[in-house]
Amino acid sequence: MPKFYFEDFAPGWTAAYGPRRVTREEMIGFAAQYDPQPMHLDEEAARHTMLGGLGASGWHTCAIMMKMIADNLLLDAASMGAPGIEEVRWLKPVRPGDSLTVRGSVVGTRASQSKPDRGFVTFRWEVFNDRDEKVMTLICPQMLLRRHAGAA
Amino acid sequence: MPKFYFEDFAPGWTAAYGPRRVTREEMIGFAAQYDPQPMHLDEEAARHTMLGGLGASGWHTCAIMMKMIADNLLLDAASMGAPGIEEVRWLKPVRPGDSLTVRGSVVGTRASQSKPDRGFVTFRWEVFNDRDEKVMTLICPQMLLRRHAGAA
Repeated sequence: MPKFYFEDFAPGWTAAYGPRRVTREEMIGFAAQYDPQPMHLDEEAARHTMLGGLGASGWHTCAIMMKMIADNLLLDAASMGAPGIEEVRWLKPVRPGDSLTVRGSVVGTRASQSKPDRGFVTFRWEVFNDRDEKVMTLICPQMLLRRHAGAA
Repeated sequence: MPKFYFEDFAPGWTAAYGPRRVTREEMIGFAAQYDPQPMHLDEEAARHTMLGGLGASGWHTCAIMMKMIADNLLLDAASMGAPGIEEVRWLKPVRPGDSLTVRGSVVGTRASQSKPDRGFVTFRWEVFNDRDEKVMTLICPQMLLRRHAGAA
């Protein structure tokens, strides 16, 4: 049984998850499979890019954040998935050995107009490294069942 | 030496990459590591979700698309990375065994106002399955060096 439904979220809700360490090996492994640009893949080549050294693929940072949100929130929630992402900002490189924390807040909520059993919660997620630098922000609507959907 | 610079992109530019097959094993592997929600992880549990069966994590579809764009375009381009993503829409589930193709177009371009050696190209990417259904769209600005940056 889910612990969290649409009604449990409103502006003022906040959360913090982590830390989660990102290793060089994992960073390079992800890059080799999904984003083989020199700045994500090879320490020496990365030095000559705008990152000035190895940095995680932005998609890897998204995936790591997703895992933290799933483990800490969505697996306990009546989640019906997300229709997409409204905005991602990659602000600073994620470096090998960085430990990431995720902070979440609710931007807004709205009940579905066409389907009375569900609603949308728009979350703002911010990812920080262990130097308290903000490395990524993301705005994402999440679809959730209402608590008493059957009784609506 | 890169083949493509900022100047090589303008509205009217199009590209198509793929197909790239997505296996059940890869789909479940990605989900276990980064997005362990039942609809991405377990065939039986997925049947009872809004996907009605196993579907790839939306982040996995992004990562697969990224690999196709890197291999076919960015590794040959004077790319300086992307500051973020403007919008992602997950329109239909990606199923085990689906073969994905990516179609790209240019929405607009603008030279950097603060740095004369570079500019931004905003791409629209669309991902299709082998039933010609659009499964994802994405709008992403890409930073690229200008061809004769040193001479500016």
